[in-house]
Amino acid sequence: MNFKEEMAARTALCEQIIKGFLPDREAFPYMETVVDAMNYSVEAGGKRLRPMFLLETNTMYGGRRDLAAPFMAALEMIHTYSLVHDDLPSMDNDLYRRGKLTTHAVYGEGMAVLAGDGLLNLAFETAALAFDRAESPEETGAVIKALQLLSRNAGIRGMVGGQCADLTAEKHPERTGLDTLLFIHKNKTSALIDSGFAIGAILAGAPEKDLESLHKIAEDIGLAFQIQDDILDVTGDSQVLGKSVGSDEKDGKVTYVTMFGLEKAAEDVRALTGEALSLYDGLSASNDFLRALILSLVDRVS
Amino acid sequence: MNFKEEMAARTALCEQIIKGFLPDREAFPYMETVVDAMNYSVEAGGKRLRPMFLLETNTMYGGRRDLAAPFMAALEMIHTYSLVHDDLPSMDNDLYRRGKLTTHAVYGEGMAVLAGDGLLNLAFETAALAFDRAESPEETGAVIKALQLLSRNAGIRGMVGGQCADLTAEKHPERTGLDTLLFIHKNKTSALIDSGFAIGAILAGAPEKDLESLHKIAEDIGLAFQIQDDILDVTGDSQVLGKSVGSDEKDGKVTYVTMFGLEKAAEDVRALTGEALSLYDGLSASNDFLRALILSLVDRVS
Repeated sequence: MNFKEEMAARTALCEQIIKGFLPDREAFPYMETVVDAMNYSVEAGGKRLRPMFLLETNTMYGGRRDLAAPFMAALEMIHTYSLVHDDLPSMDNDLYRRGKLTTHAVYGEGMAVLAGDGLLNLAFETAALAFDRAESPEETGAVIKALQLLSRNAGIRGMVGGQCADLTAEKHPERTGLDTLLFIHKNKTSALIDSGFAIGAILAGAPEKDLESLHKIAEDIGLAFQIQDDILDVTGDSQVLGKSVGSDEKDGKVTYVTMFGLEKAAEDVRALTGEALSLYDGLSASNDFLRALILSLVDRVS
Repeated sequence: MNFKEEMAARTALCEQIIKGFLPDREAFPYMETVVDAMNYSVEAGGKRLRPMFLLETNTMYGGRRDLAAPFMAALEMIHTYSLVHDDLPSMDNDLYRRGKLTTHAVYGEGMAVLAGDGLLNLAFETAALAFDRAESPEETGAVIKALQLLSRNAGIRGMVGGQCADLTAEKHPERTGLDTLLFIHKNKTSALIDSGFAIGAILAGAPEKDLESLHKIAEDIGLAFQIQDDILDVTGDSQVLGKSVGSDEKDGKVTYVTMFGLEKAAEDVRALTGEALSLYDGLSASNDFLRALILSLVDRVS
């Protein structure tokens, strides 16, 4: 299999695992709407990169997929809820994402708030199911560590913190320096990628030294990913991206590209990816697909 | 001490415990606003009934307060986030709660969405801290059970489910029968009260038989509490309540009072409280203050 086929197969596997934890509307009378809105949001697509990272580091260290699966679903639910709330009229006010109507555009604003809340809550409910799948005190300990990291990275010490800093920066571009920008990317983007890399490894009992490298790899990749997003907002094809381009410039947003220009931005994406790969090559285990996946993020066009 | 003094002392104790888990804005650069909005929401007051139930059943079964404390804070964070999102313009659109400006009225709508998300996430992050306080495998097992119940009761199998059913019922009062109403109250109100009663007991290692009774007590109290709310919306004093009265009638809302009238509603509050107390008296442990607290809910005027 070439990388593209492999990628398609892994995406399908992630989708199948995630869907297995989504609520069945028939089992939820009186509240079909919120269940529909939640499922619509998760099933609207996406690259499933975070659960894929989780699955791949878990496999790489010989973990049990049964234990990792609830966390894969939980991580994608957290990522999805953040998009649902981010798209709200009071936030970014987006009617389309990945070429499809956003959740509030279909179900109304109140229901989109509730669907996001439902997804965030379901994420922890789902992750906590992993305790019932642990087969030894060591596995229970790993689930505890994974759950603590999942909640930490998604909240004010991670993604929510990054969202707030981003919202503030949008209102005050004149006060947005490089430190703010790096803080936003590290928290808004790298934190959930870190949950993918680290939780997969933690659940498989990876050595502490490798975990440290994985945190750094996730930070680099998150930053590279975000800079690449800013580049694509200038150079990308809106058809391929499934969203409009040029929105950063239109909104007067400070980005890595407006700060350093396209050339230096592209250079830094390559440098960050290079650092991530070199750290990756120093790990005590390996996974060819994961390495190719990291590399593919530099050249992505969508 | 009489009940009123005792109640004031317990409320103060709950507030102190909850505040101990709130984020310190100095520790969160770049995102002071969301931290301020979260703390404002929690510190805006309230009866702290849910963490108080948790503390009281925990004490009653000889639990360690150190282990219960993170769950008390987590439960109040969940209750608070639900109010913040419920008050949003796209939901109930309330500018005041407990006589104070609501979160979105002070910090703006986008920041209120984010503050609610931050609180829900912090709830699980805080509850997961309890693992570090467990001193035996039994206590770790109890924390797992408590966390699973906390997440279940707050989501689509509990509060979020009730919220969605309520939102749907408001739009379709003609389709709202007694079954819908009981479903809403059981999920929107009783579920978090159940988290209080049951989690306190679980963390203290209460017997399984008592847990069953506690679930039923919480269900009865939640229903009685909600019917009393509907009664106070007709007969209450807006000054004492800290919110406007007559809003249900104005909104054409179907409530227990519009369905059965004031007299039958008051009768049922007494009957439900009576059943709760009789179940309470059959428990294997006792706590005079908790008994008085349950009784006080029948006569409340705010």
